[in-house]
Amino acid sequence: MAELTESEALRHALIAEKHAQATQLLLEQGIDCWLTFQREGSDVLLPYVVGVDELVSQSAFLLFADGASAAIVMDYDATVVEGLFDTVHAYQSSWKEPLQTLLQERNPATIAINFDRYDDGIDGLTHGQYLLLMDAMQEIGFEDRFVSASPVTSLVRQIKTPAEVERMRRACQITVQLFGDVTTILKPGISEWDVYEYLHDQMKAYNVRASWDPAYCPGVVSSKRKPGHTPPTTATLEPGDTLLVDLGVITEGYASDLIRTWYMRKPGETKAPERVVHTFDTVRDAIQRAVDVLRPGISGIEVDTAARAYVEQRGYQYFHATGHQVGTRAHDGGLMLGPDNERYRRRSTGTIREGMVFTLEPVIESIGIEENVLVTAEGAEFLVPPQREIWLV
Amino acid sequence: MAELTESEALRHALIAEKHAQATQLLLEQGIDCWLTFQREGSDVLLPYVVGVDELVSQSAFLLFADGASAAIVMDYDATVVEGLFDTVHAYQSSWKEPLQTLLQERNPATIAINFDRYDDGIDGLTHGQYLLLMDAMQEIGFEDRFVSASPVTSLVRQIKTPAEVERMRRACQITVQLFGDVTTILKPGISEWDVYEYLHDQMKAYNVRASWDPAYCPGVVSSKRKPGHTPPTTATLEPGDTLLVDLGVITEGYASDLIRTWYMRKPGETKAPERVVHTFDTVRDAIQRAVDVLRPGISGIEVDTAARAYVEQRGYQYFHATGHQVGTRAHDGGLMLGPDNERYRRRSTGTIREGMVFTLEPVIESIGIEENVLVTAEGAEFLVPPQREIWLV
Repeated sequence: MAELTESEALRHALIAEKHAQATQLLLEQGIDCWLTFQREGSDVLLPYVVGVDELVSQSAFLLFADGASAAIVMDYDATVVEGLFDTVHAYQSSWKEPLQTLLQERNPATIAINFDRYDDGIDGLTHGQYLLLMDAMQEIGFEDRFVSASPVTSLVRQIKTPAEVERMRRACQITVQLFGDVTTILKPGISEWDVYEYLHDQMKAYNVRASWDPAYCPGVVSSKRKPGHTPPTTATLEPGDTLLVDLGVITEGYASDLIRTWYMRKPGETKAPERVVHTFDTVRDAIQRAVDVLRPGISGIEVDTAARAYVEQRGYQYFHATGHQVGTRAHDGGLMLGPDNERYRRRSTGTIREGMVFTLEPVIESIGIEENVLVTAEGAEFLVPPQREIWLV
Repeated sequence: MAELTESEALRHALIAEKHAQATQLLLEQGIDCWLTFQREGSDVLLPYVVGVDELVSQSAFLLFADGASAAIVMDYDATVVEGLFDTVHAYQSSWKEPLQTLLQERNPATIAINFDRYDDGIDGLTHGQYLLLMDAMQEIGFEDRFVSASPVTSLVRQIKTPAEVERMRRACQITVQLFGDVTTILKPGISEWDVYEYLHDQMKAYNVRASWDPAYCPGVVSSKRKPGHTPPTTATLEPGDTLLVDLGVITEGYASDLIRTWYMRKPGETKAPERVVHTFDTVRDAIQRAVDVLRPGISGIEVDTAARAYVEQRGYQYFHATGHQVGTRAHDGGLMLGPDNERYRRRSTGTIREGMVFTLEPVIESIGIEENVLVTAEGAEFLVPPQREIWLV
């Protein structure tokens, strides 16, 4: 194999960590084989299996509980996966026979595939490909061996390895740098759109891309309107207004998702009005309440309750949920920090574990902060320094 | 409803065309209802249903053969779909009851959903969501009414409406402009990576994004190496080398996918060497052979055969397939122009129809051209002027 470029070497190192993690989980769960079956980047788990978002060909990636691994790809995709698996079978015309042969040789009793009713982060197999796979498995009498890979994939996705945490920290650091850049251009009359365009230029300069749909990332919301999944408007920022910027960037395949808020002073003002400060401080202290309770072993609902109770006690109505996981994308699926209601209960009852990364994002009216925190053995730590005061311009 | 911005008005107009097209196909196919069930942009058909790539919430979009339509989305996604459907149900906690109620009221005998074993362009429903939907349908006794939407979705995706063709033509025009820009910077010693970086800057300036993974788009391949799905290298272009650039851009949600080839002259040369010209002319004339036969009613294999036979007769080995469809992405699924072998047969036997857009991309060694052509009632037309001679620098 030719020598790897630095970024390719980093990809190989990260995938080695993820494969080792998955193998350990297969052993713990008593599952013999994890099979990812995809084409054209259709499976959201592909970045954890091969370290890229897209592979054109119909392909199969197998990890076994004994540590063995194999890839079956069309010939032109072979270079992307070489060195990541014990064996790479580059086929000319069909994936089917190589996969049938490999499974018959290894003869795993249980084969886990990527589907989940509720967690979009691990529900990667399309229904058409499920049927296609089952057709091939019926031919060799293997169709009853399949189970959901969720017990493995949910933790592969949610629990970050050291290499993943480093990438996410770098994404957060670049985001903080971009917020600093925004401060330098804010002046009366600047529009939401101006800030959005400026940030797109800067993101290009920093060689990062948006963590979600670039039409809505960054979200730029002045106090003239309500936050929501909407593009920036031509509304201008005038003295007395606040500005919220919701920005996430992806670098080396990993995302950040942060919010900061500014206040534009009127002539003579040395600080923001009392009401604005009261709201901002409520947001900030709600985040601290969440951080204070966040640790391995508790549920997402407990964290949400800590922040929510505080916000309501301060006389505000709370919004949606306190946070979600971040990873290769901003909304990374998995466990949420949400309330005990029909909308969020199912996603928020699970157990928090060391290595998970969450957003904490209480937003009240158009004032908000969003931080990204890593769950550690003892508690939680901010990936970058949090916003403590509303930023004045 | 508030007045729409120009781009929002264009999105609404395009979706009106696509919904009308789908309704007509439902009638023709005798299917009562087409249901798209997605979350977090998981369904590749979303751009044809609502005109955006991503919607966060678990949502259901229904079109009926009588022309009625309905959307069920979580409240914060409601603004994105308002005005596109007769009714928009914005739910607070669950999609399930509104969907059950709506289907019981309308009582469709057949409900088509987005899965297909072979065409990734219309295989949008994940297996987990299929199971989730079936759970809800069993509760109301509807579980036996479901069929694959492929007879409708394959043509909705493949047959472009006038608004779609206009967007694709604009994407091609911008791509041609970018190729012109490349010509201005080529000089001895420039590397593949330099050209790649320059094009990324220019794409940003033109406000377009890559049609496929930006790590591989544009593909920049000097005659020092073989074409393939690989990032650019530091290999430099020297007199006597050729350079192939494979570039696609997305504008207004629609993609181009074009290739052009340059030759860098040695001192004193007024044209490319005979062998290079022979290869280039073979590529160019193979495209013309394909265009000469391309028309509604024939199969993809017939088009491939016309180009392939010519290339082989000229003494070259042919590569993969002659072309694929383009649309909201570069590899758009659907019918291919491929050979009659196990690898391509299934995707290439279908019937070509008016309104389809194909690439024609014979690549021989590292010399290639890729054109995008629209199938018309009588034949086929290039979306932008084709490359006729190898470009000299």
